[in-house]
Amino acid sequence: MTALVSPEVLSQVKGWARYVEAKLGFRNHWYPIRFAHEVLEQTPVPIKLLGEKILLNRIDGKVYAIKDRCLHRGVAFSDKLECLTKDTISCWYHGWTYRWDTGKLVDILTNPQSIQIGRHNVRSYPVQEVKGIVFVYVGDREPTDLSEDVPPGFLDADRTVFGLHREVASNWRIAAENGFDAGHVYIHKDSILLKGNDIALPLGFAPGSSAQLTRSEIEPGRPKGVFDLIGEHSVPVFEGTIEGEVKIRGNMGSKRVAENISMWLPCVLRVEPFPNPGLTQYEWYVPIDEDNHLYFQTIGKLCPTEAETDEFKQEFDEKWVSMGLHGFNDDDVMARLSTQRFYQDDRGWINEILYEPDKSIIEWRRLASEHNRGIQSREHL
Amino acid sequence: MTALVSPEVLSQVKGWARYVEAKLGFRNHWYPIRFAHEVLEQTPVPIKLLGEKILLNRIDGKVYAIKDRCLHRGVAFSDKLECLTKDTISCWYHGWTYRWDTGKLVDILTNPQSIQIGRHNVRSYPVQEVKGIVFVYVGDREPTDLSEDVPPGFLDADRTVFGLHREVASNWRIAAENGFDAGHVYIHKDSILLKGNDIALPLGFAPGSSAQLTRSEIEPGRPKGVFDLIGEHSVPVFEGTIEGEVKIRGNMGSKRVAENISMWLPCVLRVEPFPNPGLTQYEWYVPIDEDNHLYFQTIGKLCPTEAETDEFKQEFDEKWVSMGLHGFNDDDVMARLSTQRFYQDDRGWINEILYEPDKSIIEWRRLASEHNRGIQSREHL
Amino acid sequence: MTALVSPEVLSQVKGWARYVEAKLGFRNHWYPIRFAHEVLEQTPVPIKLLGEKILLNRIDGKVYAIKDRCLHRGVAFSDKLECLTKDTISCWYHGWTYRWDTGKLVDILTNPQSIQIGRHNVRSYPVQEVKGIVFVYVGDREPTDLSEDVPPGFLDADRTVFGLHREVASNWRIAAENGFDAGHVYIHKDSILLKGNDIALPLGFAPGSSAQLTRSEIEPGRPKGVFDLIGEHSVPVFEGTIEGEVKIRGNMGSKRVAENISMWLPCVLRVEPFPNPGLTQYEWYVPIDEDNHLYFQTIGKLCPTEAETDEFKQEFDEKWVSMGLHGFNDDDVMARLSTQRFYQDDRGWINEILYEPDKSIIEWRRLASEHNRGIQSREHL
Repeated sequence: MTALVSPEVLSQVKGWARYVEAKLGFRNHWYPIRFAHEVLEQTPVPIKLLGEKILLNRIDGKVYAIKDRCLHRGVAFSDKLECLTKDTISCWYHGWTYRWDTGKLVDILTNPQSIQIGRHNVRSYPVQEVKGIVFVYVGDREPTDLSEDVPPGFLDADRTVFGLHREVASNWRIAAENGFDAGHVYIHKDSILLKGNDIALPLGFAPGSSAQLTRSEIEPGRPKGVFDLIGEHSVPVFEGTIEGEVKIRGNMGSKRVAENISMWLPCVLRVEPFPNPGLTQYEWYVPIDEDNHLYFQTIGKLCPTEAETDEFKQEFDEKWVSMGLHGFNDDDVMARLSTQRFYQDDRGWINEILYEPDKSIIEWRRLASEHNRGIQSREHL
Repeated sequence: MTALVSPEVLSQVKGWARYVEAKLGFRNHWYPIRFAHEVLEQTPVPIKLLGEKILLNRIDGKVYAIKDRCLHRGVAFSDKLECLTKDTISCWYHGWTYRWDTGKLVDILTNPQSIQIGRHNVRSYPVQEVKGIVFVYVGDREPTDLSEDVPPGFLDADRTVFGLHREVASNWRIAAENGFDAGHVYIHKDSILLKGNDIALPLGFAPGSSAQLTRSEIEPGRPKGVFDLIGEHSVPVFEGTIEGEVKIRGNMGSKRVAENISMWLPCVLRVEPFPNPGLTQYEWYVPIDEDNHLYFQTIGKLCPTEAETDEFKQEFDEKWVSMGLHGFNDDDVMARLSTQRFYQDDRGWINEILYEPDKSIIEWRRLASEHNRGIQSREHL
Repeated sequence: MTALVSPEVLSQVKGWARYVEAKLGFRNHWYPIRFAHEVLEQTPVPIKLLGEKILLNRIDGKVYAIKDRCLHRGVAFSDKLECLTKDTISCWYHGWTYRWDTGKLVDILTNPQSIQIGRHNVRSYPVQEVKGIVFVYVGDREPTDLSEDVPPGFLDADRTVFGLHREVASNWRIAAENGFDAGHVYIHKDSILLKGNDIALPLGFAPGSSAQLTRSEIEPGRPKGVFDLIGEHSVPVFEGTIEGEVKIRGNMGSKRVAENISMWLPCVLRVEPFPNPGLTQYEWYVPIDEDNHLYFQTIGKLCPTEAETDEFKQEFDEKWVSMGLHGFNDDDVMARLSTQRFYQDDRGWINEILYEPDKSIIEWRRLASEHNRGIQSREHL
């Protein structure tokens, strides 16, 4: 079995080898994978997470997840779905029948007396639905509380969350580093969000001493993350100077956004306020496989009343999808596709040349290397 | 030169490592490759067999086969066919000219005095035409009699055979195991052949003791094969029960078919009667390359008179092609495509979990491992 | 980092292992890459040469070339071009800004105080424009004079050159050997150039003693190349005989062409006269990557006056493009695509069987192995 990342590369990476090794993501964490309304009653949905093919299904309102591969000859259940009872799925090839809740092989329709019946379980994955999002846990250890794997405050009672998701052809780390990258504001300088929403956005930041640029949270039993403090400890750059002459300017809008930016294990960014005062953007870069991630974008707002929820929903649909989650973030998607080509063969981790604003990325790599709960490998697939 | 299958995988396979190694098929065997009517007089036909590119041609009624690669710079003759005499083919690039019958390099048109003339032979392959089928022998040893490489009875004088062939994107072993798999009847439960032909087909079989489930034939000088006896030594399952309740039923037609099923080296299944009483289905899973096989499907019938032959031909065209070779066997093709994904990187051979009806497959793997006449490797290509 | 060619293969090649190793071409040489009129003022043009992504640009009339990859996170500048001043290019991702002439990192727009500014250079490539062609030098050593990397006479004052280029899916060496191959005239036997231009072309050559078939030029400070003398020291073959009977004939036109054929480092063929008396064809097989080359075809003529230049241009456009650079040379392109399949995995270098007219190819391989100025490797990319 070939290693995902060559030992030669890993030996040359200083400080975050575990992170570089995690090409398929971190095990023993919770990941958002679909919105609740996308998983309908008795309608299996095939997905891929950390390289594992998984099948979701909702039964009597509750979502279950099992590995989408029969134990017998390895075919995908989803190649031809056969659910002969509400609680089970039968493999279309030889009728091996498993319970959705436990994964237990409860019957084999082609040989009802087989000694294999009751002796095996297809892997089942813990599932939680929170804030209208289906979270799946991939790992071997007892699942942690979901609250440890989302940014602080995300689960607050009055917080309403809307969003969308799409598959993007880059590794999940390329996406995470794009999102948490203090210097990447530069690519958004012509975004319709800036003009359309009157937002102030510098071209970049001239940071002071490196020590103050980040702050990590690593308390036991709490989410593990890194705050990017560059906004507080640097001079925002609104004039781009080339060989002594100003050649480009940042956007001088009246609204200030993105004052508080943090990145959390396993792969989620929180930006607030964003894309407007009063809103918070939470976005996940969920590993699908080595070369693709699910870009799971959400915007949250405290909506104590149903009327406020409805109003926010309307605003989300009419404004923030087109101007923010697409208009603004499509620039990020393009940057990830481009960066992927440099890191795809893993040599980018060695050949890159970082600069001061990358302090936040470096601290994220270090934190992720140290506080992840396991590395996904090919053997897990 | 990388091995076709990693030593790590081979070391973990118990009992049939040679079979797992034979990703490109077995050498020193006869394979059907085209029907006789597809190889016309003086009309070369490029094919691929066990990974080798081969060119067929018919000259004065007899079919010849040579490697489709010039010895000089390795180009395929078939990239631009040039046959300047009936008995020879000239390479379009430099005019190296070979005889179809021996493969001998008899002339070089660009240098008629070359010392290479007469000193080399492009590989030529033994060919036989029987029952309207062109068989090609790939190997180094003196060819065995064709009768050792087809199921017993196939060559009987009065047997008339019709068929078709198609390329399917799975390894040949996945196909062989699909065809010889006692439990795979399950995938045919909704086939139009069952209703259309009033056939009884159970969902599966509850076998008795494993020792009686198969019988191998390994006599010297005779075809080597395995009989699946599950039909005789088990209770056919017509009711599919899940957690105590019947949820699906097999087809209770009046005709009984497929009572005698056997698998023969190098890669041919015999099912009789099938798809109707009085008929026998013979089908080959011919290795094209690692990931593709030629599904060579035939149906045979004893037709002592020409009138019976004509009648069978009409029945074959009108009924068995659409209902059997497609209607029924298309399910098998789908199963192979699906299974291929699990075995493509060879880990399926280690991670599969077999059950009682797979006894026939296990015995086939053992027999094939022991009685094949050689393993095709990349060095042969 | 995997080697481009396996040590196993290299150890089996006698006499020209360095050439076989040079799958990506030779370093420290000049290569034609575009015609001058294709590189417009302040209009960057992305190209690929020896596997390296490069960006050309013309500034105040002079052409510059830099590596098309930002030092920071490795994205291609050409994915979104941003030239904020005439002399610089800024990376669209974080505003790292480089001078076209030196490659120096002169500013970072997102952090104008970064210590990285002024400390790094993106690789810049020496460029020369001669005869309306942009030549780029890829290497580490001080560039040689261009005159050492083109055929003798190519730079003569009165020589006018016109041409075209296209990407072909074969390794550059397959192309070079196709062009310099004495026996490959055979593929042109039906070319429209022969009939259309009344050209005499034999099917091949029956050479005398091998020693006289080539002559190498390896003087210091001069182009290094091999002359094919087979035309002088062999009997042209106009009759193709198979098993004693003439079956095909060469073209008996009145014009004699291609009397003087030579191949020069790094990868350029000179044929004169061709495709007509008074003309010379110069063609380069420029390595793009392992599996593709730029077929850079030119025809030169001594044109002392502007009137003669204009007349030659008209003749080139009306006649030699369709009849020669396409009509005749398209046969060569087809031959390269075909040959590539045999050599792609490098085993062709071991399994080929050469014959007498390949003496010129063998001498070219030897000369190239000995006199190249370096081997391009993956580490250079």
